[in-house]
Amino acid sequence: MRKTGQIAVIKTDLSDVYLGYISCLNKQDWDRLGRFVDDDVHHNGRRLGLSGYREMLERDFRDIPDLQFNVQMMMAEPSRIASRLLFNCTPRGEFMGLPINGRKVSFSENVFYEFRENKIVRVWSAVDKAAIEAQLRVLSTA
Amino acid sequence: MRKTGQIAVIKTDLSDVYLGYISCLNKQDWDRLGRFVDDDVHHNGRRLGLSGYREMLERDFRDIPDLQFNVQMMMAEPSRIASRLLFNCTPRGEFMGLPINGRKVSFSENVFYEFRENKIVRVWSAVDKAAIEAQLRVLSTA
Repeated sequence: MRKTGQIAVIKTDLSDVYLGYISCLNKQDWDRLGRFVDDDVHHNGRRLGLSGYREMLERDFRDIPDLQFNVQMMMAEPSRIASRLLFNCTPRGEFMGLPINGRKVSFSENVFYEFRENKIVRVWSAVDKAAIEAQLRVLSTA
Repeated sequence: MRKTGQIAVIKTDLSDVYLGYISCLNKQDWDRLGRFVDDDVHHNGRRLGLSGYREMLERDFRDIPDLQFNVQMMMAEPSRIASRLLFNCTPRGEFMGLPINGRKVSFSENVFYEFRENKIVRVWSAVDKAAIEAQLRVLSTA
């Protein structure tokens, strides 16, 4: 906390904001998503906006009923977060074009986020799809 | 530079080390790879060792003759780097199991690196394979 005259400026650590965002996702608390995600949010170069971003997440949870976001690694800067997310989950049918059909898979997603006033405005994500494919090959030959 | 009595301690910024590593890859200067990569290096949980890591990279350059690593985004901590790499390249045949066959593709890789004594000991990578697949769909319907 830094004091400027009589005004106390409370500096929020972006790590806390980010973990709040992850907790919001895991609770599927969509009404609170706007506290963490900007109206103008872009995902991998495409403008989704808050409503499109929410739709993407709601679809993910519909396709993967036991979806949970686990932060395995995190780096924070004043306006950016880099995070490695780990998923252990059971997509019902197809996921990323792969026929999972209720099998359990583990995979990671490495993501960069840019924040503006503590809200996510840009997301650059890469999901390790090759890891899922390798697991399906093992399962299909088992 | 921090002075401790008569001894000058030169602090190497990990960003510089990392950009040196990227330059080494782009020059395919394999004899210098050991300056940047530890003998015990692991990649996505698998121990490759320096020789296995070098083989992986040499194979990538054989499969993709115009391969160049472009750092689009980077975050540095005292012993970790997070980087988003951008590739615009022309894999000759199959790449990640996809029939590219000399077409030009663009894709990203989000990577975390852990360093020990300025050498990479752990790599956690995710390539955005879905982006490549989307480009192949566009190309095949064009």
